[in-house]
Amino acid sequence: MAKKNLLYAQSGGVTPVINATACGVIETARVNRDQVGKVYAGENGIIGVLRENLIDTSKERKGDIAALRHTPGGAFGSCRFKLKGIEDNRAEYERLIEVFKAHDIGYFLYNGGGDSSDTAYKVSQIGSKLGYPVQCIGVPKTIDNDLPITDNCPGFGSVAKYVAVSIMEASLDVESMASSSTKVFILEVMGRHAGWIAAAGGLAQREDGDPPHIILFPERPFEQRAFLKRVKESVEKYGYCSIVVSEGVRDRKGKFLSDSGVRDAFGHAQLGGVAPVIASLVKEKLGYKYHWAVSDYLQRSARHVASKTDVDQAYAMGKAAVDFAIAGKSGVMPTIERTSDKPYRWKVGEAPLSRVANREKKMPARYITKDGFGITPSARKYLEPLIRGEDYPPYDKQGLPKYVRLQKKLAPKKLDPFEVDD
Amino acid sequence: MAKKNLLYAQSGGVTPVINATACGVIETARVNRDQVGKVYAGENGIIGVLRENLIDTSKERKGDIAALRHTPGGAFGSCRFKLKGIEDNRAEYERLIEVFKAHDIGYFLYNGGGDSSDTAYKVSQIGSKLGYPVQCIGVPKTIDNDLPITDNCPGFGSVAKYVAVSIMEASLDVESMASSSTKVFILEVMGRHAGWIAAAGGLAQREDGDPPHIILFPERPFEQRAFLKRVKESVEKYGYCSIVVSEGVRDRKGKFLSDSGVRDAFGHAQLGGVAPVIASLVKEKLGYKYHWAVSDYLQRSARHVASKTDVDQAYAMGKAAVDFAIAGKSGVMPTIERTSDKPYRWKVGEAPLSRVANREKKMPARYITKDGFGITPSARKYLEPLIRGEDYPPYDKQGLPKYVRLQKKLAPKKLDPFEVDD
Repeated sequence: MAKKNLLYAQSGGVTPVINATACGVIETARVNRDQVGKVYAGENGIIGVLRENLIDTSKERKGDIAALRHTPGGAFGSCRFKLKGIEDNRAEYERLIEVFKAHDIGYFLYNGGGDSSDTAYKVSQIGSKLGYPVQCIGVPKTIDNDLPITDNCPGFGSVAKYVAVSIMEASLDVESMASSSTKVFILEVMGRHAGWIAAAGGLAQREDGDPPHIILFPERPFEQRAFLKRVKESVEKYGYCSIVVSEGVRDRKGKFLSDSGVRDAFGHAQLGGVAPVIASLVKEKLGYKYHWAVSDYLQRSARHVASKTDVDQAYAMGKAAVDFAIAGKSGVMPTIERTSDKPYRWKVGEAPLSRVANREKKMPARYITKDGFGITPSARKYLEPLIRGEDYPPYDKQGLPKYVRLQKKLAPKKLDPFEVDD
Repeated sequence: MAKKNLLYAQSGGVTPVINATACGVIETARVNRDQVGKVYAGENGIIGVLRENLIDTSKERKGDIAALRHTPGGAFGSCRFKLKGIEDNRAEYERLIEVFKAHDIGYFLYNGGGDSSDTAYKVSQIGSKLGYPVQCIGVPKTIDNDLPITDNCPGFGSVAKYVAVSIMEASLDVESMASSSTKVFILEVMGRHAGWIAAAGGLAQREDGDPPHIILFPERPFEQRAFLKRVKESVEKYGYCSIVVSEGVRDRKGKFLSDSGVRDAFGHAQLGGVAPVIASLVKEKLGYKYHWAVSDYLQRSARHVASKTDVDQAYAMGKAAVDFAIAGKSGVMPTIERTSDKPYRWKVGEAPLSRVANREKKMPARYITKDGFGITPSARKYLEPLIRGEDYPPYDKQGLPKYVRLQKKLAPKKLDPFEVDD
C-alpha cells in the first residue's frame, strides 16, 4: 500500500487536553513515517478542510508538538459546524473527498463529540461510494462526558478536577468569612444537558458536612422550597452553605433558570448566569449575604490544574487513533475501557462509529442522591479516578505557563475555492 | 521580662496565603519558646477576641501547622468588623485589654489590611493608657494590594498569578472557537476601588496582539464608544477579543456598571456582575457571540496556582512579626522592601502603624496606558516579580489538595460574656 497522508481536525468546544490528543496523533504518526506520510490539520476544524486550509504539521518543531501535550485550547482552531445529512448537502461531502484526493489523504481523524462521530461515520461511508475510500477514525473529546461506550471522555477529567478543587478552595474562603459576612457561595459550572460536571463538585465532599452542601443538577427540576430549606439548614448547621449549580438547571416547566427573566438596563434578556439568579433568590428569601462565581471558559481551559489521568488518556486516544489507522481500520473510535475500579485500571478499547454517532450518554439516575442535592457513593467510585494525578505545565521564569503557539503554515492549495456557510 | 503569650488574629477578606502568614507566626513562636509562651488565635478574628473565644494553637499538631503554609482561606476564621474610634466605643478597647490581661497576652499580632492596622495602632496606644501595655504588631495582608509603604501586600501576588494564568488559558480557548463561534470573552476580577488585580491580567500579554486585548480599570471611567471601537478592532485584527474587567468599573457619573440596572425576574436589582453587563452591551451593539466568567472567591482562594514569591513573603511577614515582638517592638508592621527589580530582590522592612493606618495606596496613573485599556512597561516591571515561581500544595491519591482543617480547641474562658454587635 502506498504511503498516505493523514488529516486531523478538532471539532466543537475545546478542552484542557484536546491538544494532548493532537500531540498523540502527530507524535505517533511521526514515529511511523514508513506508514503515514504528512500530518495535516484542518484550520479551525472541518471548515478549514472544506476551504482547503490545511495546516502542514511537518513544518512544526518537535518541541512545539511536544508542548501541545500541556497547552489548553485548540491549537489548530476548532469550530461549531455540523455537516448536514448526505441527502441535504451532498456537495460538502463531495468537497471533503475532493480535498482528500487532492492532498492524498488516506486517514481522516476527527477529534470531537457526538456530532463529530456522526460526521466521521458518514465520511467513511461516502468515500467508498465516491470511489475514494478513506479510513475515518473518530477520536473522543468532550468535557460533557456524554459519549456512549467509552467509560469517560478525554477533557472531562480535567474539568472535573478544576471544579472539585475550586469549590473546595472557595468553600474554605466562605467558611472563614461566614461568622460576620458571606454565608452562601454559589459556583456555576457547565453542563447544559447533563450534570456530569456539577457532580464532580461532589468529590470535594469527603466527610459529612463537607462542602459543597448542595449540588443542583439539570437532571432534577429546581424545587425552590426544598432548596431554600436546605440552604437554611446548612447555614444553621455549618455556619455557611456552599453550592455548585449546573448552568442547565431548569424549573418544573422545563425552563432554564438562567433565562428566568434577568434583564439588563435596556430591558434585554441577559443570557447565561444561573448563579446570580440563585443568589438573588437566597438573598430575597433568606437574607443571607452571598457571593457567586461563574467559571465558564475558565473551567474548560484550566490546563494548570489538569488531571494526569485525563492528560494520559487524551494522549492515548490520539495515539490509538493512528495505530487504528495504520492497522487498516475505519469507521471506529478508540475508547477508554475501565477494567478495574480499585485499583483504577483502564485500557484502550474500540467502538464502531455507527454506535457512537448521535447517541448521548446520560448520567445514571443512581448517581444523584434521593434528595437531589448530592452525589452517591457509586458516582464517587466512577468519578474519583478521573481526577487523579497532577500534570503541571512547565512555567517560565516570569511565572506563567509555557503554552505553545504553533506556526500553522498552510499547505499550498490545489483546488478552486469552496463556499462554506459558517 | 516574664514570658508572655501571643495573640494572633486574621481580619477582613481572606487570601490564598494568609494561612502561610499564620504558619510563619506560629512556627517562629514555637522555635522561640523561651521568649514567647502560648500562641492563641482569635476565633473568627477580633470578634472572637472580644468574646474570649481564643483558639489554643499549642493543641494543634506540628504537621497541621506546617500545612497552613499551603492551605487557603482563613484557618482560624476571619471577620469583617472594624472597631470604632476609642471615643465612640471605649468599652470594646477596654474589653480587649481585659482579655489580654486574663490570658497573659503580651503580643498582639493583627493580620489584615488598612482597617486592621488602624485597630492594631489604637490598641497599642490604649494598652499603655489602661496600664496594660501590649506590643501590637500589624501583619500585612490584602489581595487589593492597597497598603502604603510596603512594596506589595501578601495575597496579591497569588491572585495576580491566578488572573494572569486564567485569562491566558481562556483566551487560548476563545481563540480556538472564534472563527465560527464565540468572539468575545470577558473575565471579571475583584478590585472595587483599585485596578491592581485587573492590571495583573495584563501580564499574560507578552507580545503585541496577545490577550487580554482590553483591560477595564476602576481608575478610568467607562467610555462606551471607545470600548466598543476597540472590541471591534480586536475581533477584526485578531479574530477575537479577550477582556479583563474590574468589578469596580464605573461610568462617567461614578456609578458602578454592575449596578446599572440589571434586575432579576422579581424586579430586584441584582448585585454584582459587571461582566454580564459588558457582555450584553457587546452583543447588543456589535452582535458578537460572547462568553463571560466571574471569578469572585475563586481568585482569592486559588492556592493551587499560588505565586511562590507571594507564599514566601506571606510566611516571612508572619515570621518577622514575631521577630519584631521578641525584639520589643510595638506599633509597627513588617513590610516588603524591594531592593532590586532585575534581578528581583526584596527584604523585610518596617513601618510605623501610624503611617499605615487608614492610608490607601492607589495604583499609579502611569501604570495604565494612555488609551486606558492596558498596562505600561512600568506596571509590568512592578507586577512581574510578584507572580514568579510555583508553590503547589501536596495532593492526595484521590487527586485533591491536602488542605488542613485545624482542631481549633478553645482556651478555657476566664471572663464574663461580652456582647458584640457583629
